[in-house]
Amino acid sequence: MSESAPDKLLFTPGPLTTSRAVKEAMLRDLGSRDAEFIEIVRAIRERLLAVGGVSKADGYEAIPMQGSGTFGIEAVITSVLPDDAKLLILINGAYGRRIRAIAQTQGAIVEVLTAPEDRPIDAEDVRRALAADRDLTHVAVVHCETTSGVMNPIEAIGAAVKEAGCVYIVDAMSSFGGVPLNVWNAGVDFLVSSSNKCIEGVPGFSFVIARRDALEATENEALSVSLDLFAQWEGLEKSGQFRFTPPTHALLAFDQALKELEEEGGVEARSARYRRNHDVLLAGMREMGFREYVPAEYQSWIITTFQYPDDPAFDFNAFYEKLSERGMVIYPGKLTEVDCFRIGNIGRLDESHMRALLDAIRAVIDEMGVKVG
Amino acid sequence: MSESAPDKLLFTPGPLTTSRAVKEAMLRDLGSRDAEFIEIVRAIRERLLAVGGVSKADGYEAIPMQGSGTFGIEAVITSVLPDDAKLLILINGAYGRRIRAIAQTQGAIVEVLTAPEDRPIDAEDVRRALAADRDLTHVAVVHCETTSGVMNPIEAIGAAVKEAGCVYIVDAMSSFGGVPLNVWNAGVDFLVSSSNKCIEGVPGFSFVIARRDALEATENEALSVSLDLFAQWEGLEKSGQFRFTPPTHALLAFDQALKELEEEGGVEARSARYRRNHDVLLAGMREMGFREYVPAEYQSWIITTFQYPDDPAFDFNAFYEKLSERGMVIYPGKLTEVDCFRIGNIGRLDESHMRALLDAIRAVIDEMGVKVG
Repeated sequence: MSESAPDKLLFTPGPLTTSRAVKEAMLRDLGSRDAEFIEIVRAIRERLLAVGGVSKADGYEAIPMQGSGTFGIEAVITSVLPDDAKLLILINGAYGRRIRAIAQTQGAIVEVLTAPEDRPIDAEDVRRALAADRDLTHVAVVHCETTSGVMNPIEAIGAAVKEAGCVYIVDAMSSFGGVPLNVWNAGVDFLVSSSNKCIEGVPGFSFVIARRDALEATENEALSVSLDLFAQWEGLEKSGQFRFTPPTHALLAFDQALKELEEEGGVEARSARYRRNHDVLLAGMREMGFREYVPAEYQSWIITTFQYPDDPAFDFNAFYEKLSERGMVIYPGKLTEVDCFRIGNIGRLDESHMRALLDAIRAVIDEMGVKVG
Repeated sequence: MSESAPDKLLFTPGPLTTSRAVKEAMLRDLGSRDAEFIEIVRAIRERLLAVGGVSKADGYEAIPMQGSGTFGIEAVITSVLPDDAKLLILINGAYGRRIRAIAQTQGAIVEVLTAPEDRPIDAEDVRRALAADRDLTHVAVVHCETTSGVMNPIEAIGAAVKEAGCVYIVDAMSSFGGVPLNVWNAGVDFLVSSSNKCIEGVPGFSFVIARRDALEATENEALSVSLDLFAQWEGLEKSGQFRFTPPTHALLAFDQALKELEEEGGVEARSARYRRNHDVLLAGMREMGFREYVPAEYQSWIITTFQYPDDPAFDFNAFYEKLSERGMVIYPGKLTEVDCFRIGNIGRLDESHMRALLDAIRAVIDEMGVKVG
């Protein structure tokens, strides 16, 4: 089946197109207590720290958590806030709003600082907000807002958070491994990402990179058993095993994905490939008359948002389906106010795939009789 | 790698040995919004109900949930208890205790009824407990307690629960698909199992089979965003999509695993194979002098618990390692009071594998100079 019909290319924020070798790594059944598996998990945790520019010796820990990326976010929010915490959430898109929903469901005390969906959060605004309310103890922000593709300046925000002595939580779901980042330099205490983003593994788990001191302060804070970050870490440290059944196959795939990231030249090389994908895409789309949603200076190279053409002949569902029939899967929009669609630049894709997508878009637009721009 | 060294056989409660075709089904990258994937998920949900002897038309719903089986248990406990609920938990092993830990972490009001670890819960005891405390609203029990292998009489318990008008929650993690069960006959409102047990898929998600009326009564009760059972169901019903990234590859594997279950002849045929595995194992172990922990009349055919031999020359870790070197992975014990080890009879194993394991155990015992029995 997989031999006869090649898979569609996924120009999405994940699940992504992965390499054949990543998928083939799943052709094994390892026991979750098996010594080989335990060593793979140990090495994955160590290598994840290296992707973030830190190590155990620097005082950091990597903790995989079963479930999607949102489970990792909830694991942090539900595990690290003491009863008297007051969390400032920086929101310029749907993923910031999701952090708020998770925190509010947990009964956390929450303040919000917003920016428009096509603009990054301003670190000076954060500094002022923290100065104005000394009860704030934690700050959460999304690195690359997948809603729009806007990149938030997490280093500058981190400096403001550290000045105020707060704990800094970063949702780096769609950026980690695809955007150079030193967790220590950015002052991040808890960073969350997932297996099926820029590391180019398959979906099945998220992971948290935590500053050990901050993590150790959270013992017994968790409001959940499954999503208890401290207990998950403690279990992995004590026995090398997950507390509850791990997605063994997804972890085997991730081991291979990390190997391929290292072979490619690490985060610098990978981010250069993604950036080139984005540049080729943006140039080609502009040439057709499409307009991007986010101003170029705020735009990440992870995912690019385009506005619908003004022509009423444009119907997104038809556009999506016709591209899908050509083996190209794009992504719908998620903005609150503007009709957009999104194209992901990440996964096992290079500029030849972006050019193939551009050719397909040209053909579909032509077929639909849509006048763009 | 997977070609050169065959995987060890997993005589464990999961992750299990799965078929090659189940693993090969993961050699694809499907988008989570792709029409083909959505249809696969829809069909999986329908077929899961059939494994439980029910259907949508009968008023039941199947809801997959990302994460391990414990995440599915927590999804139910955190989603279906209103503020004034009082939950009776029936405990005769570690998995019953885990339900209690989850409920207590959520702040639920909990009562407990216990039985010894080598004995099933008595339905008459449940009837008396429910009669004695009319405030009880929900009852939770584990079907096959993997701690020991004891099978609890969930139909008889269900009758008592229904007489009392309570909501009935069953952890059927290690039994569903491997022990014939009609969810309706047993009066079950919420049943939880996972992808890597008797359906013989790979780990990555759990699933809940819910009586729709009981599920609909739980809207807005959830104390978690990720583990919100009602919202997960609603999302799947509205768009066919998961709210958060699904483990696409594990779902593709599960689709194939369900096909193989159907081809084998359904739950009856599969349970017969597992029962035969258990019978062959038990006879061979007894012949060597090993003693089982659970009396035969209470013993499931899912997993079998054996007591350590009395001979001080027996060292479990050495025993485990020597079997592992021979390509056979067994499972340590989890009992509170008795030193035991466990051998799983489930997964892609038949009696030839059980005989191979018995041969290996004989050789290892001999090599270790252990006198058994």
